[in-house]
Amino acid sequence: MVPAMEKVRNQKVVLKDYINGFPKESDLLLESSGTVDLKLPQGSNGVLVKNLYLSCDPCMLCQMGKTQSRYFQSYTPGSPIIGYGRVARVVDSANSNFKEGELVWAGVAEWEEYSIITAPETLFKIQNTDVPLSYYAGILGLTGLTAYVGFYELCAPKKGEYVFVSAASGAVGQLVGQFAKQSGCYVVGSAGTKEKIELLKNKFGFDEAFNYKEEKDLDATLQRYFPNGIDIYFDNVGGKMLEAAIFNMNLNGRIACSGMVSQYSLEQGDGVRNLLCLVTKRLRMQGFITGDHFDLYPKYIEMVIPLIQQGKICYVEDIVEGLESAPAALMRLFSGRNVGKQVVVVARA
Amino acid sequence: MVPAMEKVRNQKVVLKDYINGFPKESDLLLESSGTVDLKLPQGSNGVLVKNLYLSCDPCMLCQMGKTQSRYFQSYTPGSPIIGYGRVARVVDSANSNFKEGELVWAGVAEWEEYSIITAPETLFKIQNTDVPLSYYAGILGLTGLTAYVGFYELCAPKKGEYVFVSAASGAVGQLVGQFAKQSGCYVVGSAGTKEKIELLKNKFGFDEAFNYKEEKDLDATLQRYFPNGIDIYFDNVGGKMLEAAIFNMNLNGRIACSGMVSQYSLEQGDGVRNLLCLVTKRLRMQGFITGDHFDLYPKYIEMVIPLIQQGKICYVEDIVEGLESAPAALMRLFSGRNVGKQVVVVARA
Repeated sequence: MVPAMEKVRNQKVVLKDYINGFPKESDLLLESSGTVDLKLPQGSNGVLVKNLYLSCDPCMLCQMGKTQSRYFQSYTPGSPIIGYGRVARVVDSANSNFKEGELVWAGVAEWEEYSIITAPETLFKIQNTDVPLSYYAGILGLTGLTAYVGFYELCAPKKGEYVFVSAASGAVGQLVGQFAKQSGCYVVGSAGTKEKIELLKNKFGFDEAFNYKEEKDLDATLQRYFPNGIDIYFDNVGGKMLEAAIFNMNLNGRIACSGMVSQYSLEQGDGVRNLLCLVTKRLRMQGFITGDHFDLYPKYIEMVIPLIQQGKICYVEDIVEGLESAPAALMRLFSGRNVGKQVVVVARA
Repeated sequence: MVPAMEKVRNQKVVLKDYINGFPKESDLLLESSGTVDLKLPQGSNGVLVKNLYLSCDPCMLCQMGKTQSRYFQSYTPGSPIIGYGRVARVVDSANSNFKEGELVWAGVAEWEEYSIITAPETLFKIQNTDVPLSYYAGILGLTGLTAYVGFYELCAPKKGEYVFVSAASGAVGQLVGQFAKQSGCYVVGSAGTKEKIELLKNKFGFDEAFNYKEEKDLDATLQRYFPNGIDIYFDNVGGKMLEAAIFNMNLNGRIACSGMVSQYSLEQGDGVRNLLCLVTKRLRMQGFITGDHFDLYPKYIEMVIPLIQQGKICYVEDIVEGLESAPAALMRLFSGRNVGKQVVVVARA
């Protein structure tokens, strides 16, 4: 006799249809009609997880439209959208590496209450629970690894170097700035509100910070903040800020291209007109996708956990409760109204 | 009694005044009034050389104007212009490392008949004279090292990779294409005349070549020539071609920015609008100045001399006779009328 399956509700956040331009909350739908069996079917090799925390990521904006399809894979209307961080609990496992009740995180996450993970090798076991669990959707997940890979691996900082970080109060930026200070660098951040600028200077320990929305000539602004030039630019925004930074780079400067949030809703990107500086200043621009660098995760964790525990790194999250709040949280992020890492609590346990 | 000095004429090519836009031959002046003593003054530590061959280089265009001053150091009107390769004979030396009659080459050269080299450490002795002496103003000088550093050191080619070279029949491009073939890569070049395209395919062994002036949509052109995408782009032109190449790069592609000749006479550079691809495709763009890499010269020479001697690398020069022909030769280069490395013979011995 086949045992009766326990079916529960499985709410999902789905894209209604491809968007044009900037998205709005109503482009997303909380679909409540689906259910999931709490036991995996016989013969499955997967892992069934209950999602606890989901990460909201700027690049999700690109995946809602079709026009950016040369850059990102678009979401499928009617299917759950996908973000870049989840913390989850194993509900059932057909894979010998995972047991019911274990906590895991992953760098890819469907926005739904329960997910069946068909590639369990993409799950990381959460070993250290002395820190808030939500951190594994951010500083101890893909977000943190992004800051680490981009800053340390690609930019190879040296003590005393001048570092510029855009979108600096964001999930990645706040960490890059603090890593730069840990490395003995001088660091300036840009952000888009007065509140964020205060946070950068008073909480994250940036040497200086400015509100780019109040600046008319970003090139001149950067000249003012970096009279000795920029050695490392950690670029989260692209476009006009990238162009201004390139003009202000020092010889042998390094630019880590982590994301280009200013470009995500444009049908045609802003033109960067001064790439000739790459030649004359011997600059290196390196784009990266953190998912290529999971091999560095253990090294990163070894570095960052003690820093968190000793209070040497601080980390600000902007947390909303419930999957029903997820579409609004994503719009907060896209329009820069979040402060710190935007996370959605789907369930607390 | 002080010995009488032997004075000889020392013609120079000087910039009359800063130019706007594209230069013309009459912006340069052959100044014939100067003289030079053929003996260095007592107490000098310099080396007096007679220039034999001078290299014409595309980036010299930038140095004739003031508007590109954020990129290149402008020439001083009334002073000899400076190119990026000379072959010379030592006439007198106050430096124990150099003796009268020795042949040398250097990566920087004032355009004049005789020069006093105040930093003799910038001179390289010419050891191998089995090859044409003019080669040290090109393939065996800065030009060759540029191709070597950009292709091998920065792009780390692997057998079977797809390589695109712009300005491919030029001094650097023709070598990059041949190095790519030596490395077992598939290589396509672009150039601006039918004659150059023939040369690329029939003499330099490029797998394919196209005339960019006949193409309306460079992005589509590159899609056609690279159905499997581009792994390495050796960029000599920048601007629209760079943008088209970026769209066609494969994941983890590498772009060596050697020069951006399409941008040199523009007051404002062409905007490259798709840098977001750097992130999504994990691309690396690296600018470089060959003068930073002279440490690699011995390694390069060890590789390239046998290839030349065995006829495995061919090298085309476009040689004009006499310093009086130098301004015209430079304009030939700037307007793409040269075929191969543009060299000026100042003297044969």
